[in-house]
Amino acid sequence: MSGVIATYQLFGKAGSFEKKAEAIALGLTVGSWTDLPLLEQQQLQQHKGRVVSVEEFPHVTHPARQGVIQARLKIHYPAANFSADLPAILTTVFGKLSLDGEIKLIDLDFEESLLRQFPGPRFGIDGIRETLGVNGRPLAMSIFKGVIGRDLDYLSDQLRQQALGGVDLVKDDEILFDNPLTPFDKRVTAACHVLDEVYEETGHRTLYAVNLSGRTSSLRDKARRARELGADALLFNVHAYGFDVLQELAEDEEVALPLMAHPAFSGAYTSSDFYGVSTALALGKLTRLAGADFSLFPSPYGSVALEKETALQLGQELVSEGPLKQSFPVPSAGIHPALVPLLLEDYGVDSIINAGGGVHGHPDGAAAGGKAFRQAIDAALQGQALTEAAKQQDELQKALALWGETV
Amino acid sequence: MSGVIATYQLFGKAGSFEKKAEAIALGLTVGSWTDLPLLEQQQLQQHKGRVVSVEEFPHVTHPARQGVIQARLKIHYPAANFSADLPAILTTVFGKLSLDGEIKLIDLDFEESLLRQFPGPRFGIDGIRETLGVNGRPLAMSIFKGVIGRDLDYLSDQLRQQALGGVDLVKDDEILFDNPLTPFDKRVTAACHVLDEVYEETGHRTLYAVNLSGRTSSLRDKARRARELGADALLFNVHAYGFDVLQELAEDEEVALPLMAHPAFSGAYTSSDFYGVSTALALGKLTRLAGADFSLFPSPYGSVALEKETALQLGQELVSEGPLKQSFPVPSAGIHPALVPLLLEDYGVDSIINAGGGVHGHPDGAAAGGKAFRQAIDAALQGQALTEAAKQQDELQKALALWGETV
Repeated sequence: MSGVIATYQLFGKAGSFEKKAEAIALGLTVGSWTDLPLLEQQQLQQHKGRVVSVEEFPHVTHPARQGVIQARLKIHYPAANFSADLPAILTTVFGKLSLDGEIKLIDLDFEESLLRQFPGPRFGIDGIRETLGVNGRPLAMSIFKGVIGRDLDYLSDQLRQQALGGVDLVKDDEILFDNPLTPFDKRVTAACHVLDEVYEETGHRTLYAVNLSGRTSSLRDKARRARELGADALLFNVHAYGFDVLQELAEDEEVALPLMAHPAFSGAYTSSDFYGVSTALALGKLTRLAGADFSLFPSPYGSVALEKETALQLGQELVSEGPLKQSFPVPSAGIHPALVPLLLEDYGVDSIINAGGGVHGHPDGAAAGGKAFRQAIDAALQGQALTEAAKQQDELQKALALWGETV
Repeated sequence: MSGVIATYQLFGKAGSFEKKAEAIALGLTVGSWTDLPLLEQQQLQQHKGRVVSVEEFPHVTHPARQGVIQARLKIHYPAANFSADLPAILTTVFGKLSLDGEIKLIDLDFEESLLRQFPGPRFGIDGIRETLGVNGRPLAMSIFKGVIGRDLDYLSDQLRQQALGGVDLVKDDEILFDNPLTPFDKRVTAACHVLDEVYEETGHRTLYAVNLSGRTSSLRDKARRARELGADALLFNVHAYGFDVLQELAEDEEVALPLMAHPAFSGAYTSSDFYGVSTALALGKLTRLAGADFSLFPSPYGSVALEKETALQLGQELVSEGPLKQSFPVPSAGIHPALVPLLLEDYGVDSIINAGGGVHGHPDGAAAGGKAFRQAIDAALQGQALTEAAKQQDELQKALALWGETV
């Protein structure tokens, strides 16, 4: 029977979890069971939630409540109970339940017939590589910085400097919205112009991800317009809008642009150890399911950082085998060239090295900053120590001198 | 200068918060300041975030980290930095910052020129009262129960029983989505029929809130169709969709139906003491701002319960004076007639007494359950003890016998 299996983490007394699991499985589906006449039980059988497993961890005790241990419950919800959209699924499996004390939604296993009703990434890792013509190495990406209140010339120049460094992608600052100085359409047009120039000069193609923002119902037309104007990709603050809004953009044949999911606001519901949704599910599985070609998230290494295990699980969700295309993992925040070997070890070749300050803060400017990253990537791929590579490469040498040679 | 002031709760060492506040105010706006040339400072002045206040609580120590205390920071973000929509505002004030360790968004103060760009409730408490012709008492509401897998006859009968009890509103179960047995349109049509019948029989008018669900871009047309079919109100799982989706429904002249915001999924980002968004902001201020005429939330008294102070603050946000209409507070979950005097004390006359099990579980059925609530409301308004009123009123007497006379 098609459906979804939700995994929950919660706390309670040893031996209390079977009853709790049954209460959830019934309470979030048919309501009651044992007191129903047999005929009604037969009618409702296909709608009844089912306890798949109850796993107690007697040694994982609650930090504040005595005699209370952790457990994981798996509950199966039949697809007959919900429409095949994420708002319905999230409301079913974690609607009322999200308010029921210390309980966290750890994972959702979609049975394949349900999973196939979601688009996943339109391009995926392979599609993006094909667009760029870049294979066999992680991509390099950089971020506009300090662009609020600046005009188009300023943005164009900053974009040019970044592209000249050889990065493959440049993304808008996620807090740059439509504004009189640098409106959406003009950013797209100006970026096309700059990036075409750089391509003519250097032969290197950089893509620009413009921040798609504004009212929900305006996004589709705006995205289509962006495509007509020649946009390369769209940055999207999915967690401030809702997963289904991302999914509709991904499904739209007339948008058909790579989508970059930003983690803004996601910390509100992923950061707690006791409540909310696991990071791997929110920024990994669901972001991919809803159609992001790229998922940005805090790397384990910056000042805003995820725990390493969490960050790795997240990455795994983005690239694991399955019917959906892969999303690019984009570990971010506080990345500088010396971290490249670590990121390569963590996320492999099919990932993106993404930096803001680590590009713009280079002593010789953003173009040199980008070059230093590309040099670090090449060295790491060849198994060469960065310090060794830096002997021949001035940009990398200066970056290592500034940000440190090792972590 | 128009904008929004965000209040954050965070933890750190005494004396460290000024610096942190400055880092947030700059980092989430212009990026840097002291190293900018004077001319650029002048250009960017109107975009610069500003620390409004830093308040340390030396006696509120962190439960797990020694020498660490709580503080509240208030930061002003100029409206020039964002478009006047909640996704942009939430991304600005709590985008990246939501991922930055133990920090919680407590409140947002919208300056009036910004606030006026949000619709607030279309009907509000006064408008709903006018529709119903009910003044001077809390409204009574009940909830469909166990309707997954059931057919239209079952739903119609359950609705009829509830309406016969004299409740003012009946809402769908929030986990009832579009399905072959009870599709959206047919639920609306069947409910109109049943409620008209009850009105003819009893003279009492009950409104039905149908669950508006499905893909985001389909909601508007579906809501308009519901209105054409004679729907009374829409239930909406706003936290599974996004605030802006609710707002667009509220603003739509062709929808123009009362909107009932359900708290499903909100616990994911409101429950933690350390992360996410305060309950009063999420289920109170923002829900009202975005246009909900009703906001449901766990009362302080049920099994799924909010802390009393939180639940009261939330209610206050829904009804406080200001340019927007008021939203009805609907404290919910585990409500039975004996709780009516408490709820009246907490939320006053302008609130809604909402029950599921407390209606359907009445020994004499849902109609008697609704009557017991109406009797409890009348008694409480007259300052009469429920036990006293129950002497004359069989339904109330049986309800008190079952669920207890006092809390």
